[in-house]
Amino acid sequence: MSGREFFTARTVAEARSGFRPAHRTPLRTVPLADALHRVPAGPVPATAALPGFDRSTVDGFAVRAADTFGASEGLPSYFDLLGAVRMGAAPEVAVRPGGCVAVPTGAVLPPGADAVVMVEYTAETMPGTIEVTRPVAAGAGLVRADEDVAAGSALVPGGRPLRAAELGLLAAAGVTEVTVHTRPRVAIVSTGDEVVPPDTATLRPGQVRDATASALAGLVADAGGTPVRAGIVPDEPGALKEALGGVLAGDLGGPVDLVVVSAGSSVGVRDETTGAVAALGDVWCHGLAIKPGKPTLLAECEGVPVVGLPGNPLSALVVFRLVGVPLVWSLAGCPQPPPEPTTRARLSRNLASAAGRLDVVQVRLAGGPAATTAGSTAGSTAEPLFGPSALLSVLTRADGYVVIPEPATGLDGGTEVDVVLYR
Amino acid sequence: MSGREFFTARTVAEARSGFRPAHRTPLRTVPLADALHRVPAGPVPATAALPGFDRSTVDGFAVRAADTFGASEGLPSYFDLLGAVRMGAAPEVAVRPGGCVAVPTGAVLPPGADAVVMVEYTAETMPGTIEVTRPVAAGAGLVRADEDVAAGSALVPGGRPLRAAELGLLAAAGVTEVTVHTRPRVAIVSTGDEVVPPDTATLRPGQVRDATASALAGLVADAGGTPVRAGIVPDEPGALKEALGGVLAGDLGGPVDLVVVSAGSSVGVRDETTGAVAALGDVWCHGLAIKPGKPTLLAECEGVPVVGLPGNPLSALVVFRLVGVPLVWSLAGCPQPPPEPTTRARLSRNLASAAGRLDVVQVRLAGGPAATTAGSTAGSTAEPLFGPSALLSVLTRADGYVVIPEPATGLDGGTEVDVVLYR
Repeated sequence: MSGREFFTARTVAEARSGFRPAHRTPLRTVPLADALHRVPAGPVPATAALPGFDRSTVDGFAVRAADTFGASEGLPSYFDLLGAVRMGAAPEVAVRPGGCVAVPTGAVLPPGADAVVMVEYTAETMPGTIEVTRPVAAGAGLVRADEDVAAGSALVPGGRPLRAAELGLLAAAGVTEVTVHTRPRVAIVSTGDEVVPPDTATLRPGQVRDATASALAGLVADAGGTPVRAGIVPDEPGALKEALGGVLAGDLGGPVDLVVVSAGSSVGVRDETTGAVAALGDVWCHGLAIKPGKPTLLAECEGVPVVGLPGNPLSALVVFRLVGVPLVWSLAGCPQPPPEPTTRARLSRNLASAAGRLDVVQVRLAGGPAATTAGSTAGSTAEPLFGPSALLSVLTRADGYVVIPEPATGLDGGTEVDVVLYR
Repeated sequence: MSGREFFTARTVAEARSGFRPAHRTPLRTVPLADALHRVPAGPVPATAALPGFDRSTVDGFAVRAADTFGASEGLPSYFDLLGAVRMGAAPEVAVRPGGCVAVPTGAVLPPGADAVVMVEYTAETMPGTIEVTRPVAAGAGLVRADEDVAAGSALVPGGRPLRAAELGLLAAAGVTEVTVHTRPRVAIVSTGDEVVPPDTATLRPGQVRDATASALAGLVADAGGTPVRAGIVPDEPGALKEALGGVLAGDLGGPVDLVVVSAGSSVGVRDETTGAVAALGDVWCHGLAIKPGKPTLLAECEGVPVVGLPGNPLSALVVFRLVGVPLVWSLAGCPQPPPEPTTRARLSRNLASAAGRLDVVQVRLAGGPAATTAGSTAGSTAEPLFGPSALLSVLTRADGYVVIPEPATGLDGGTEVDVVLYR
């Protein structure tokens, strides 16, 4: 049982900055409707300017701005109404000095005009004559043909997940397909003689159903990955090595981009996991300075990153969230994962920690997370939830977690902390 | 053009609290793998306790705690090693006074034992004799059979989306299917003579491609809904009413749970939208005290909520995020939407607003949102992005938005504000 002394232990910060597998998922061209949160490998250029024509942004009258100078309520300017522009159509009439053309919001600015007077500052005093009671500057009431996007400029950058607004801009530019990194396929391997599938109706003494695989699948999906279940491997010498070899060889219906092993909790089983992984590739660390989650393994086998998680579901999920989720994003071409929901709250009590170790403490917010979405977090309290990491219910009762960073030896009750919220 | 004077205008807060359609999506029983972020209608009870047996949480030796009292490094207690418990198996030996049984983490506590001494505080001094150098209290090193979940208690509550941890707890309890509200089917109806499908290769003067529908589809998917595109309706009298009637009658492959109309921007078109909706149901408001986004319509037609959005993509997306997204969640059985990512930042300049109106200001964070995920937001600056709401690029350049609440007449530069981050 001396195996635990030989951990190549690292801090979480070291793991995040130092364990950077080069593997990326392949690129594929997908319809815009399938591209939400997918990551383009490079910028997508605009082939033409947007909106593509000088466009009115108000309901009103297109004029030459110079003709409105000096106009006021007391001394209006008068314009000949020359016609109207229809939505979605080319103007059929130009603006000449002293004339105006009616334009709805979104219509093409007619030739000769350089501004649009809002209808609120006009009146049709006689049929065919428009009175204007305010001056406008050139460029008022319109957007220029290339003001939204210039031809050749980037509609979206590479390396950042596409958000709803980007899908809109791509659609506006006529880009209906985009080349993005495919979703990482994440193999989830469970191990343990005590672990049985969730659909096991009756447990024999000592058996537990596989909770970790289902929860991990949820975290993988949230990170934009596709979870692929590899089943449960018994604690037999060679069994895990054989199973991992099969996963790496494509047994799960094709190549995978990441392998996650939820290892057994006992020291002997942990050593077995390390041995199996070491036989297939390079172990980067086996041991993280994190609580819970110390017995974490990071490795690379045949170019595919492998994360070995602690046996307790709670510990496994804590570690996967901090180390695995950024890895899934990075495999998909996004070096920086999107922001997580957070809120500020005051700790309800003191929290102890050891210097050099990152502590992750599950908390419940007084009033629940509901209190935080209204925008005001004043007075909200984070109550630490304790209990052995063998208890998954600690996690389901939590609204989020607080991190006690490596240098700290604890946090005082009353301290204002950032709570990362589960969603 | 006097239509704008007859707005039944409401504040955003009034809309959120007062416009509460009773409609909910139907319930369906789905496999756990499809239940992430879905909302169970009611609590899901545990049929048996978890873990179901007294379970060791450490590698060590099961003992009667009383036998360890007084043990110390100087004066250890000695125990007869009676056997070992295997993982996933029933114990084959009981603990009697003065005896101990080896147990790995996660194994069943053998009968007669009430604590587990960690292996770190033991040594096998002679074959068959275990030396213990620390006392343990009853209950140490184990979790009780019902400590994670008691039989009959709720594994998950109703009315709250299932998170990854809940999927794990349900799996642990042998619940492989769960009855949840189906994803809301959200019909997206675009209108406008100037609007053409995104796959239109070449635009005629005045035409714009439909950006809003693609972006809305992204927001709907993020809120757990299924977007269903209803196409583009021309600005012809009766056309929208006919299209809406068809959508409500099931023309989009079945019933829909929400209808979103991205209306034309001009006053005349807005009046046409209001008229079409009013002919089919009850208009709750047409006008929101929000900038951008004033010409917003909320209605209920044949029990289905209808949201009429402004014609500008930027305005439409701002309003849908604030009013539509909570509606999608509520239709799916979740009265309170999950939290959004936020960060604190200092405004780089003064922002003006009108009292009684909610202003939504797009901002870019100095250093980008990357600066915020590391946990430290100190010194991060929110730079307001201005520009007509006709420009979608204002939204794609933004990292998030700041809300200036109704009572405020503005915010001073340097004020610390909550930024809601896009993801």
